Amino acid sequence: MHTNIVQLTRYFSYSSVLRFTEEVFLSVGFSSADAELSARLLTRADIRGIDSHGVARLSGYVRLIKAGRLNPEPQFNWSGRFPVLRTLDADQSIGFVSAHAAMSECISMAEKFGCAMVAVNNSNHFGIAGQYSLMAAEKGLVGMAFTNASPLVAPTHSLDRMLGTNPISIAIPSQKSKPFVLDMATTTAANGKLEILQRKKQEAPSGWIQKSDGTISKDPNELKAGGALRPLGSFEELGSHKGYGLGSMVDILSGVLTGANFGPWVPPFVAFLPLAAENVGKGIGHFFIAFRPDGFMEQDLFLERMEKWMTAFRSSQKIGDEDVMVPGDPEWALEKQRLAEGIPLLPSVVDDLNQLATEFGLSQPEPI
Amino acid sequence: MHTNIVQLTRYFSYSSVLRFTEEVFLSVGFSSADAELSARLLTRADIRGIDSHGVARLSGYVRLIKAGRLNPEPQFNWSGRFPVLRTLDADQSIGFVSAHAAMSECISMAEKFGCAMVAVNNSNHFGIAGQYSLMAAEKGLVGMAFTNASPLVAPTHSLDRMLGTNPISIAIPSQKSKPFVLDMATTTAANGKLEILQRKKQEAPSGWIQKSDGTISKDPNELKAGGALRPLGSFEELGSHKGYGLGSMVDILSGVLTGANFGPWVPPFVAFLPLAAENVGKGIGHFFIAFRPDGFMEQDLFLERMEKWMTAFRSSQKIGDEDVMVPGDPEWALEKQRLAEGIPLLPSVVDDLNQLATEFGLSQPEPI
Repeated sequence: MHTNIVQLTRYFSYSSVLRFTEEVFLSVGFSSADAELSARLLTRADIRGIDSHGVARLSGYVRLIKAGRLNPEPQFNWSGRFPVLRTLDADQSIGFVSAHAAMSECISMAEKFGCAMVAVNNSNHFGIAGQYSLMAAEKGLVGMAFTNASPLVAPTHSLDRMLGTNPISIAIPSQKSKPFVLDMATTTAANGKLEILQRKKQEAPSGWIQKSDGTISKDPNELKAGGALRPLGSFEELGSHKGYGLGSMVDILSGVLTGANFGPWVPPFVAFLPLAAENVGKGIGHFFIAFRPDGFMEQDLFLERMEKWMTAFRSSQKIGDEDVMVPGDPEWALEKQRLAEGIPLLPSVVDDLNQLATEFGLSQPEPI
Repeated sequence: MHTNIVQLTRYFSYSSVLRFTEEVFLSVGFSSADAELSARLLTRADIRGIDSHGVARLSGYVRLIKAGRLNPEPQFNWSGRFPVLRTLDADQSIGFVSAHAAMSECISMAEKFGCAMVAVNNSNHFGIAGQYSLMAAEKGLVGMAFTNASPLVAPTHSLDRMLGTNPISIAIPSQKSKPFVLDMATTTAANGKLEILQRKKQEAPSGWIQKSDGTISKDPNELKAGGALRPLGSFEELGSHKGYGLGSMVDILSGVLTGANFGPWVPPFVAFLPLAAENVGKGIGHFFIAFRPDGFMEQDLFLERMEKWMTAFRSSQKIGDEDVMVPGDPEWALEKQRLAEGIPLLPSVVDDLNQLATEFGLSQPEPI
């Protein structure tokens, strides 16, 4: 990391960041249950090291509420014709509350019937996808979570921003190890990583970004100048059409199938950007899947096999000094570290939180 | 394509290739129903332009039968505790027959209950994944198909071949367009593309292959010299851990969860390579998912929204002359062309088929 940034980064205890976040949500009109839940799920990103999706976004959610795009007191409306498939119209809820309700319902249907799926429309951004998949894994099930997001990504051969960074996540329980948690944007890098490069005035690797004319650029500012992110694979010869295909799958599951907006019509996260002229659905959408491994074999045998899988991969031969990890390992390590040592926040994020404190008459979070 | 190869490529009608393939399967002891089905599903790859997975592999399947690794007369054994989740022990069946039976069962459970999943173990390679997903889409459902495969791919930071090219596929019906069909290896390129480069003595793009010491190579022969394929993303800075994560997800769904072998223990497709010293399950495994879009909204509305999605993406602004396509478009175009104009076969593939003709006393397929 850039030296100045490291020097200026300060550490805050998880409990103080959590408390402050909850107070902000209470201040903008959330019920106490929704404020508690949203604060816990938002700051989970900070604990797990996905800093771009944590309290750095708190003021963004507040602005969406002020702009009338996020409803602090949503009334959920459920529908469906099958006991294993349900749709939730989330009434412009913050994504944390709607996604948590949706995955809870999905898990309880899957526990009863074996597998289940829930589609959510009329929602907003839900933070990190992996924590919803993980809700299932913590109950011994396999969970998957998807969401669409503001269009920033150009399809292969295209100039236009048609897809969000649309994450895929799956969590799978194991015997002794913490669950396998894959949680990945379907681009080379999440937008948050680009924002960090912009702040540090550093170049991006070739393959992350294209300019407004479609040529490759290393300048992270090109994204704001009409360029686009490139899908996972980056170049046609390295399979960028596959990243595009995966992002498309997520958009169709989360947007087309749920009744939400999709593709270029997905509303932007930042309140200062206008909504698309046309709505093709309601808000943004999420999609959840849960199922019982013991529908296929005894649960103990499955967990034992999963542990064997994890051990085999972790102990495969290293190329250099870096460990071979399995998906989720880096986040579990950070979670342990940050709960003990605190959460590092950049100066711009601390300023942002202090402004919210002033605005709502709250005590600022105190660094450790 | 290399000039000599193009000059020597000959075209065969689909019906003659199909008939010949069926006769070969009959000759090695398949029932007439299984021979017909296997021939149709194997040659579907040739029609759809995935030449590496078509009749080029016919002699490979015959060798597996001779080696006692593929059972021409399997007895299927179904199990399960939920009406929506079932496991199939395929008794060393060819993958075409077991995957077709599994997806048929998955569709019929999903039609009745809304969504369903089928796990298959003790199977063999099933050709192209997309055709099983497509079975669901042709009935108005969303279908997904996964399989694990012979270990060729090294995890990020690893020297070892731990994963197959493990495809992800999803097919989604639309209103007027042919279904959306994503069918992708979770590597930068499928192994078949590398075999073509070897034959043509051409270099591979940097990022497809690593040498036995883990360094990047452009020489496609390095794979046989102890190297490995790299996951989608190719380089750490371009997100190779994501391709590794996706390949892992496919291996866990198809292998760990089904009772099949997984990771480095998956049996090789080629009969001349020995099986792993240890078995951690039975054969190779597949995993299938199907669900009803009308569990979430009216089917007509869903199909209309899906058509709008496809139209928007196809009509987004092009960078150069190449069209912006949606997943499945290239294969639908090839299918139309090849049914009309015939299937191009390389000289080595024709030789292979002619040897099978001699061995089993069949008439050789005749070029157009």
